[in-house]
Amino acid sequence: MATLGLVEYDEATPEVKAVYDDIMATRKTDWINNFWKALAHDPATLRRTWESIKQIMGPGTLDPLTKELIYVAVSATNQCGYCIASHTAGARKAGMTDAMFAELMAVVGMANETNRLASGYQVEIDERFLPSRNR
Amino acid sequence: MATLGLVEYDEATPEVKAVYDDIMATRKTDWINNFWKALAHDPATLRRTWESIKQIMGPGTLDPLTKELIYVAVSATNQCGYCIASHTAGARKAGMTDAMFAELMAVVGMANETNRLASGYQVEIDERFLPSRNR
Amino acid sequence: MATLGLVEYDEATPEVKAVYDDIMATRKTDWINNFWKALAHDPATLRRTWESIKQIMGPGTLDPLTKELIYVAVSATNQCGYCIASHTAGARKAGMTDAMFAELMAVVGMANETNRLASGYQVEIDERFLPSRNR
Amino acid sequence: MATLGLVEYDEATPEVKAVYDDIMATRKTDWINNFWKALAHDPATLRRTWESIKQIMGPGTLDPLTKELIYVAVSATNQCGYCIASHTAGARKAGMTDAMFAELMAVVGMANETNRLASGYQVEIDERFLPSRNR
Amino acid sequence: MATLGLVEYDEATPEVKAVYDDIMATRKTDWINNFWKALAHDPATLRRTWESIKQIMGPGTLDPLTKELIYVAVSATNQCGYCIASHTAGARKAGMTDAMFAELMAVVGMANETNRLASGYQVEIDERFLPSRNR
Amino acid sequence: MATLGLVEYDEATPEVKAVYDDIMATRKTDWINNFWKALAHDPATLRRTWESIKQIMGPGTLDPLTKELIYVAVSATNQCGYCIASHTAGARKAGMTDAMFAELMAVVGMANETNRLASGYQVEIDERFLPSRNR
Repeated sequence: MATLGLVEYDEATPEVKAVYDDIMATRKTDWINNFWKALAHDPATLRRTWESIKQIMGPGTLDPLTKELIYVAVSATNQCGYCIASHTAGARKAGMTDAMFAELMAVVGMANETNRLASGYQVEIDERFLPSRNR
Repeated sequence: MATLGLVEYDEATPEVKAVYDDIMATRKTDWINNFWKALAHDPATLRRTWESIKQIMGPGTLDPLTKELIYVAVSATNQCGYCIASHTAGARKAGMTDAMFAELMAVVGMANETNRLASGYQVEIDERFLPSRNR
Repeated sequence: MATLGLVEYDEATPEVKAVYDDIMATRKTDWINNFWKALAHDPATLRRTWESIKQIMGPGTLDPLTKELIYVAVSATNQCGYCIASHTAGARKAGMTDAMFAELMAVVGMANETNRLASGYQVEIDERFLPSRNR
Repeated sequence: MATLGLVEYDEATPEVKAVYDDIMATRKTDWINNFWKALAHDPATLRRTWESIKQIMGPGTLDPLTKELIYVAVSATNQCGYCIASHTAGARKAGMTDAMFAELMAVVGMANETNRLASGYQVEIDERFLPSRNR
Repeated sequence: MATLGLVEYDEATPEVKAVYDDIMATRKTDWINNFWKALAHDPATLRRTWESIKQIMGPGTLDPLTKELIYVAVSATNQCGYCIASHTAGARKAGMTDAMFAELMAVVGMANETNRLASGYQVEIDERFLPSRNR
Repeated sequence: MATLGLVEYDEATPEVKAVYDDIMATRKTDWINNFWKALAHDPATLRRTWESIKQIMGPGTLDPLTKELIYVAVSATNQCGYCIASHTAGARKAGMTDAMFAELMAVVGMANETNRLASGYQVEIDERFLPSRNR
């Protein structure tokens, strides 16, 4: 279920199929999750979003697991049910253990708490933390 | 500047000084940032918050740098100016390079984008991503 | 289902019925959606909210479709399931096509991404963008 | 400073002056804060917003101080600098002490933390908490 | 259902049982809601979170009902389904009537509206509202 | 000012200069705003973000002004100071009048209010609003 429906592989246009194929090849899986099937009604957004995700989540100075943990942290902060479910699964696949998940949640919870304490108390930024002082 | 003002070390009660001392010893620094000085008007919250942070950000299955990156990710998602500034500084101290910061931001930005695409398109959670299926 | 239950037309007080009637007449429909039935337990809020919506969403310098698109954009950003569903339906009724919905989502996703890049990178507002310079 | 500028009392139209007068009379003050001066460029929104605020924040089953505390709680959660500053001042005027402010912040911080723990852990709502069971 | 599953009382470790017992004794109930059962996979977070909640929601200058109202206000602002359901139930238990709930929602809705008007109009903080002027 | 500093045109690498040139040509301006200068420390993100923005904000079924209005709506909802300032300027350039800005803000404020009323009252989605019923 999704606003514009889900585009299954067999009914996809060649353009959409090409993206689906690249997703499965890159992720070494044999299925496509609903997020992409929902976007497929807009091939331009499907392609752009996948290309961006592929570039961003690929090899770099941060390892894939760390990137997935960050994705879950953002999704939990935004309370996005679909994203929490899909990226928690993704993080597990990248190596996240139960203990790591629990620690991740503890940090996310704490950050959300202190974010509001800092704002609510109207705390001024310390001079040492200003960008120009911090490089 | 802060709603209840800032409590400087010299004017702090012994109870507050003890927390300040523990913060500096744990972090191996010789100064206290404004966040703690603002909370110090409520010693119970000061102590509880510090003890929680100390426990959560301490050694575990996630390394200190990863935890600081997650903290920055949450703070940027929440648009908390103070927290972005202080935890970006904290992450640098824990080893974050310019390249790591840039990758972190790319992931945070992307996650905030796809969170809204998933919600806006009303994408249903794939059965494979349900908690009971995912352990 | 709703916290205080739903007030159906037949069991509504004359005061609530009057608002229901105005909603149906204004929207040219013959039914009331759950949002109003849930608010009906508090007639003052029901009336005030409806009067505000009616005034705001009515004719002005922005056309009704544009206003519904903006409503969906805010609801998707806030991840409000009910509001995304009801205002997506409302936007369709006002003329939104599948292609327009897809473009709307693309803009909403991008804005949520760059909002965090701007905050996370601690970008200072350009002088030319300051309100006093921008009129 | 504000996007459309600030409308001072002396340059206001009679319609805007009438709202300003009602704000000062209701709040027993002799000045108008910037929020209203910014809205005054749109007299319809100025009047509607003020009438709503006046109705909602007025006498009811919740006392004025409780309502101001709730207003600060929402503003701190949303990280709205202007609103935190103005409603913290409003809450003080309504009787909030330093100790009450500190307790308020502690609750707000904790709620923001557990909100993310509940979402992040994908906790299912207990049957006893469902609206139909809870009346 | 929850990411790591739910830990029932009978299968809990003595450490977790001790927290469960304290929750039931403090709240004068004979059952544990899913939130705690989900956290129980991480005994350190379970204990820390419960101890914090117990301290913060306990007797102080704000009464228990006011604290529960604030908790609901934050949860509704963050759109956390679980937390809205559980804390609405908690607020009822602490004495919240239907009329109080309706007033609470009206304030929460209004605050969320004016928060965006203030930010969107780029309203500058009045000098009188600055922390240093407001003590 | 920005976390990694701002990259001015004269000190930019050829790769960054090419993006700057395309931004100025596309927007028919002779300057680059700070957002891009901040991202320029990460040429991959600079290019990807600009290419996405260019594609999304370009000609389509929604006109450029509508897209800018949506961008401001999201930015105001997220309380992103930089984005509100820059996209309000962008919307003006695309034709937004003072009256349109005021209407936009009214819709954004109202949507943020009713989003929380819908969530707070735990309103169930009407069957007629479900995606499968709404196509």
